[in-house]
Amino acid sequence: MKRGFGSDNHSGISPEVLKAIAAANIDHAVAYGDDEYCQRTEELFRQTFGDQAKVYFVFNGTGANVLNIDAMCRSHHAVVCSDTAHIHVDECGAPQRIVGCKLLTVPTPDGKLTPELVKTQLHGFGFEHHSQPRAISIAQATELGTLYTLDEIKALADLAHSYGMYLHVDGARLANAAVALGCTFKEMTTDCGVDCLSFGGTKNGMLMGESCVVLNPVLDVDMKYRRKQMSQLCSKMRFIAAQFEAYLSADLWRRNAEHSNRMAQLLYQSVKELSGVRVMYPVQVNSVFVQLPHEVWTGLLDDYFFYDWDEANNVVRWMCSFDTTEEDISNFVAALKKRL
Amino acid sequence: MKRGFGSDNHSGISPEVLKAIAAANIDHAVAYGDDEYCQRTEELFRQTFGDQAKVYFVFNGTGANVLNIDAMCRSHHAVVCSDTAHIHVDECGAPQRIVGCKLLTVPTPDGKLTPELVKTQLHGFGFEHHSQPRAISIAQATELGTLYTLDEIKALADLAHSYGMYLHVDGARLANAAVALGCTFKEMTTDCGVDCLSFGGTKNGMLMGESCVVLNPVLDVDMKYRRKQMSQLCSKMRFIAAQFEAYLSADLWRRNAEHSNRMAQLLYQSVKELSGVRVMYPVQVNSVFVQLPHEVWTGLLDDYFFYDWDEANNVVRWMCSFDTTEEDISNFVAALKKRL
Amino acid sequence: MKRGFGSDNHSGISPEVLKAIAAANIDHAVAYGDDEYCQRTEELFRQTFGDQAKVYFVFNGTGANVLNIDAMCRSHHAVVCSDTAHIHVDECGAPQRIVGCKLLTVPTPDGKLTPELVKTQLHGFGFEHHSQPRAISIAQATELGTLYTLDEIKALADLAHSYGMYLHVDGARLANAAVALGCTFKEMTTDCGVDCLSFGGTKNGMLMGESCVVLNPVLDVDMKYRRKQMSQLCSKMRFIAAQFEAYLSADLWRRNAEHSNRMAQLLYQSVKELSGVRVMYPVQVNSVFVQLPHEVWTGLLDDYFFYDWDEANNVVRWMCSFDTTEEDISNFVAALKKRL
Amino acid sequence: MKRGFGSDNHSGISPEVLKAIAAANIDHAVAYGDDEYCQRTEELFRQTFGDQAKVYFVFNGTGANVLNIDAMCRSHHAVVCSDTAHIHVDECGAPQRIVGCKLLTVPTPDGKLTPELVKTQLHGFGFEHHSQPRAISIAQATELGTLYTLDEIKALADLAHSYGMYLHVDGARLANAAVALGCTFKEMTTDCGVDCLSFGGTKNGMLMGESCVVLNPVLDVDMKYRRKQMSQLCSKMRFIAAQFEAYLSADLWRRNAEHSNRMAQLLYQSVKELSGVRVMYPVQVNSVFVQLPHEVWTGLLDDYFFYDWDEANNVVRWMCSFDTTEEDISNFVAALKKRL
Repeated sequence: MKRGFGSDNHSGISPEVLKAIAAANIDHAVAYGDDEYCQRTEELFRQTFGDQAKVYFVFNGTGANVLNIDAMCRSHHAVVCSDTAHIHVDECGAPQRIVGCKLLTVPTPDGKLTPELVKTQLHGFGFEHHSQPRAISIAQATELGTLYTLDEIKALADLAHSYGMYLHVDGARLANAAVALGCTFKEMTTDCGVDCLSFGGTKNGMLMGESCVVLNPVLDVDMKYRRKQMSQLCSKMRFIAAQFEAYLSADLWRRNAEHSNRMAQLLYQSVKELSGVRVMYPVQVNSVFVQLPHEVWTGLLDDYFFYDWDEANNVVRWMCSFDTTEEDISNFVAALKKRL
Repeated sequence: MKRGFGSDNHSGISPEVLKAIAAANIDHAVAYGDDEYCQRTEELFRQTFGDQAKVYFVFNGTGANVLNIDAMCRSHHAVVCSDTAHIHVDECGAPQRIVGCKLLTVPTPDGKLTPELVKTQLHGFGFEHHSQPRAISIAQATELGTLYTLDEIKALADLAHSYGMYLHVDGARLANAAVALGCTFKEMTTDCGVDCLSFGGTKNGMLMGESCVVLNPVLDVDMKYRRKQMSQLCSKMRFIAAQFEAYLSADLWRRNAEHSNRMAQLLYQSVKELSGVRVMYPVQVNSVFVQLPHEVWTGLLDDYFFYDWDEANNVVRWMCSFDTTEEDISNFVAALKKRL
Repeated sequence: MKRGFGSDNHSGISPEVLKAIAAANIDHAVAYGDDEYCQRTEELFRQTFGDQAKVYFVFNGTGANVLNIDAMCRSHHAVVCSDTAHIHVDECGAPQRIVGCKLLTVPTPDGKLTPELVKTQLHGFGFEHHSQPRAISIAQATELGTLYTLDEIKALADLAHSYGMYLHVDGARLANAAVALGCTFKEMTTDCGVDCLSFGGTKNGMLMGESCVVLNPVLDVDMKYRRKQMSQLCSKMRFIAAQFEAYLSADLWRRNAEHSNRMAQLLYQSVKELSGVRVMYPVQVNSVFVQLPHEVWTGLLDDYFFYDWDEANNVVRWMCSFDTTEEDISNFVAALKKRL
Repeated sequence: MKRGFGSDNHSGISPEVLKAIAAANIDHAVAYGDDEYCQRTEELFRQTFGDQAKVYFVFNGTGANVLNIDAMCRSHHAVVCSDTAHIHVDECGAPQRIVGCKLLTVPTPDGKLTPELVKTQLHGFGFEHHSQPRAISIAQATELGTLYTLDEIKALADLAHSYGMYLHVDGARLANAAVALGCTFKEMTTDCGVDCLSFGGTKNGMLMGESCVVLNPVLDVDMKYRRKQMSQLCSKMRFIAAQFEAYLSADLWRRNAEHSNRMAQLLYQSVKELSGVRVMYPVQVNSVFVQLPHEVWTGLLDDYFFYDWDEANNVVRWMCSFDTTEEDISNFVAALKKRL
C-alpha cells in the first residue's frame, strides 16, 4: 500500500522543491525571515498577488487559517462558513480555542456558500447577546472538490464588504483551482476583493509550508506577533521561502496541479460508468467523491488507503496528487472492479 | 556576512539530515504520523528515553513548550521558571494566550533555578485568589549557556513531586548539554524524574523539527487533540520523523553538539584574556556571553550579525553551531581585535 | 410601558428576597463564601439536590453555564446542544472564548434534543482532527418554553454516559419546569443522572444570583479557582446565599413559578382562538410564542416591550413573571385585539 | 467574631444603598441596561468623570479589571504593573486566561510604580519574540494603602502616551483615595490622562457593583459584546445602577470613605507606639499594615479574622470599613494589647 489515493498530502516532495532546499543549504542565514531567500520570495508573492500583498509564512494549513481568522476577528466576532469547511470540521476546534470566536455554519449542497446562504446568518448586528458576524470564509477549491467562479467569489466579497465584513479564502488547493479555471492566482483573489488568503504548498509538492497572504492592508496589523504567539514562526525560514520560490517561480505549482487534476479526470472517467459507483460531485480539481456499496469500499480499504467521507452514506474520497501515475489509476480501478 | 555567531538556528541542515529527507521521499505515506518512518522513530525515542516515553513531533520549540505546558496545566495553574526562561522572554506570551496559565518568574544569577528559588513561589496553595503552582520549568542547557548537574535536576524533580507538581525541561539544546555532561539523554531526564521534555533538533542540524516527549504517563492525556488544535500537527510527518531518525540513530546529535561546544570553547579561549572583554557566564555549551565596550560591539555588528542580550549592560551573545569552523572563529576574533 | 411581557428578568425582586437581603445586612461576614449564610444555603442545596451536590454561587446564567462547561470540557472537546440553546445563541460566544471548546448544534423542532438527534453528532471519536464530543447540554425548560419529561432527561443522561460523556442542564427556569411537571428538583436532575446544573434564581424573583450545582463528584475539580478566574466570585457572597435561602426554604421558588406559569396559561387561553394569532409551541411554562401579522406585532411594540424571536417569520415571545397580574394580561390582550 | 478588620468587603450594605434598591423595585424595567435607572446613572458618571466618560457596569472588580485590560490589549500585548497589583496577585490569572496577554511585574517598595520603574519594562518594541508593552496599570489607592499624587499619576499617563500606551487605574478604593487627597474623581483620573478606570462601589458600602469607566474614547470599541462574553452583563441591571446612583448622588461615597479612612487613622494612632508593632507603610486610606511577633498575630486570629499579608515576614493587614466603629477599634486594640 505504498501508493494510493488517500490524500494529496500522502505524496512526497517535488524534486524541484527538494533541490531548492539543498540549494539554500549553504552558510548561515538570519533566522525568522530576515534573510535573502525570504526577501526574494516575498517579492514573488507581490508579483503573484499584487503589490499590496503581504505574506507570512507558516507551518501548516490550520496555522494559516487560524492566523487569518485572528487578523479579521476578535473573540466576539463570528465567521460564516460552510458546514463542510476545514476550519469547522477538521481543525479540532482550533479557531475556537486560539481566536475564541465563533463559526456560524451553513449547510450547502456542494460545499459552496452563496450570498443567499450567507445572508441567513447576517443578523443580530449590534445586539450584544449575539456574536457579531465579521468574516465569510470559503475554500477554493472546496473540501468537496468543487469550485467557485470568479463572479461567485466577487459576489461574496461584495456581500462581505457591504456589511463591513471580510472575505477569507482557504487556498490549500488554490493551485488546482487556478489551473481548472484557467486564471491567475491574482484574478481569483485580489481582483475579486478577497481580503486574506491561506495559500498552501504542502498538498501540491512542497515538503511543508503554507502562508497567510494579507491582501487588504487594513488587516495587516501586528500579524508577526501573533504568528509567533501561535507557534507558527519558523526559525530556519529560508527553507520555507526556498520551497515557495521553487514553487512559484518556474510554474511548478501549475505543472503539479495540472497533473493531479488530469489524473482525477482519468480516474473519474474510469469509474463513472461502473455500475455500483455513484460520483457525488462534479470533478473539478483533484478529488473524486463516490458512493459505493458498503462491502465494496470497506473491502477496497484492504488494498488501498483512502478516507471514508460520509460513512453513514457510504461516500468515500479519492485524491490524486502531483505524483499519481496512470498506472496507479489503472491498478486502482482494476482492484475496484474486482470488488464490485 | 554569510557566516557568523548569531544563533545556532542561523546554520543550515546537516548533510545526513538532508539525505534522510531525500531517502524518505519515495512513494506515499499516510499523513499525520501513521507511517513507518514515524513508527521507527517513535521506537528510537523509546530506546533513547525509556519504554514509557511517548513522543509527539511538532514544528518548533515554542510549539513543544506550549504543548507540554498544556499537558501539565489548566489555566488556573502556574509554572515557576527563571526570569530568563525562553517561555517567559521569547515566546511573545504564547503560554499565556494558548494555555491561559501564569508564569511565576524568579530572578536567577545564571539562568538556573534552585529548590530555594523555586520555594519562594510555592505558596497560596488552596487559596482561590492565587494561580496554583503546578509545574517547574527549566532549560537544559539554559538560555545563558549554563548547565544543571544531574543532582540539581533530580532535586528540582523531587521538589516538584513533593508538592504534586511536575518538572518540565526545555531541551532545545539538550544535545549540547548531554555531551558537556558526558551522560545520556535518559540519565539527564527520565532518570532524574523529569515529567516532560521539549526535545529539539532544529538548533543542532535539523531542517525543522521538535518534539514533546512525555516521560510521566500521567501527563499523556489527549495530547494528540491538543497538538492538532494548536496547529502543530504536521501532515507529511514522515519528513520530521526521518530527520529525527538520522539525528538519533547514528550519533549525529552527538557529533554536531560536540563540535559546536568545542567551537565555543575555542572562541572563549580566544577572547577571554582580551582587555575590554568580560565573559559573563561559564562557557559550558555552545554560547559565549561577553560584556564589551558599547562602541566595540555596535561596531562589530557591521561585520557580523549577533544578538545584543542585555543592551543596557553591553552584554552580547555569540553562538557556535554544528557548522562553525576554526576559520570562522579566527576571522571573527581578528575582527573583534580590530575594534577593541 | 412600566409593565409588560418582555422577559421574566424585566420584573424586580420578590419581597421575601429583599427582606432576606436586609436581614443578612448586619455586622460583618467573611467574604467570598466562607460565612454562615453560605454554609446554611449550601446545606439547603444538599437537601434539595442530594448529599453529593456541590454548589458554586455565581453572578449570572452565562457565568453558570460557562463554568459548568469548563468543568466538563477542555478546549478540544465539544458540547452537543440544540441550535436554539442559550449557550449557542445568546451568550455572545462565551463558551468559545472562555472554555475554547466547540458547540455542535442540532436543529430541533421544539428546542428539545433527543437521543436520535444527539447521535447525529457522536462520531469522530479518537480522530484528532475532530473536536471530541464530551457533553450534552439541554435547557429545562427550553428556550422555547417546552419541557423534557423525566424519562427523556434520563434517556439523554444514559446516552451521554454510555459514551463517557456528561449531561448538563441549563436550569435558568428550572423552577417553572418543576411546578409544571409536578416533581422535585432532585427528581428532575440528580435522579435522572444529570451531571451538572446551572440553577437560576434571577428569572424567578431574585435580585441577582445563579449557581453551578455539580451533581457528579467527578466533575468537582478545581471549580473554585476557575470561578474566580472567570470573574464569577462574589465578595459579599452572603447576599447571594441569603437570596437563595429565602428562595429555597419557604417554597418561594414554587409560589413564584406556579404564578408565572398560571399567568402564561391565562395569556395563552386569552389569545389562542384569536384570528391572526398562531401559537407556535405548547405552553408548558411561563412563555407564549406566537406568530402574528407583521403590522400587528410591530404596532403592539408601541404599547408594550417584548422580543421578536424570529423576525423573518413574525414570531414573537411573551414572557410572564412572578409579578404578572391578571390585569396586566387583560390590558395586554385588549391592546392586542385593537391591533388585530 | 461578627465584626472585625478582615476586609472592607466583609462589611455589609450602606442603608442608603439598600433603600435605593428597594426604591427601584417597582414594576418592570428592560433588562441589560436599557432602563431609566441606568440612563440616569450613566449621566451621573458623565457629570463625575467628564462628558466623554462611558460607563459599563459589571459585577465585580476582577471583571472590571479584565474588561478594561481587554479594551487596551490583544493577547500579544503586555501590561506593566506592580508585583503587588491585584491583577497579578489576586485574580487567579484572570487576565492571562481571559485576555491571553502578559503582565510585566515590577517590584516596588510601597506598591507604587514610577516612570523609572516602568521604563525597566519598556523594551523589545517591534521584536516579535517579545510581548509588546501596551498598558500601565496602577491601583489608587494601592493594595498597600498608599497613594499616588495627581502629579505622579499624570507622569505615568504621560509616559504611557509617549510610547503609544495606555494608563489603567484600578479604583476599587478610589473613593478612599479621593477623600484622602481632597480632590474630585475627575481630577484624579480624567484630568491626569487616565485612559480607563475600574471604579468600585462594593468595598465602600454597595451590595455588589463595579464598573469600567472608559475615559479615552479610542478604547470604547465593542465593549458591550465583550462584557457579555465575559459573563459580566447583569440582567436586572437597574439594581446596579440604582446603587451607584445612591452612591454618587448624595456624597455617600465621600461620607463612607471619610469614615473608613478616619477609623484607620484611629487604629494607626492606637497601635503605632506599641512595642512589638511595626507599621509598614504610611496609613493614607483605610488599611493598616503591621509587622507583629508571630505568636501575637496568630493568637489574635483566634479573636478576630484578618489576612496575613506576608506570612514569612509576619506582616498582616487590618482594614477599616464604612461601618467600623470607635468601639470596634478600642475592643480590637485591647485584644491586641493582651497578646503583646
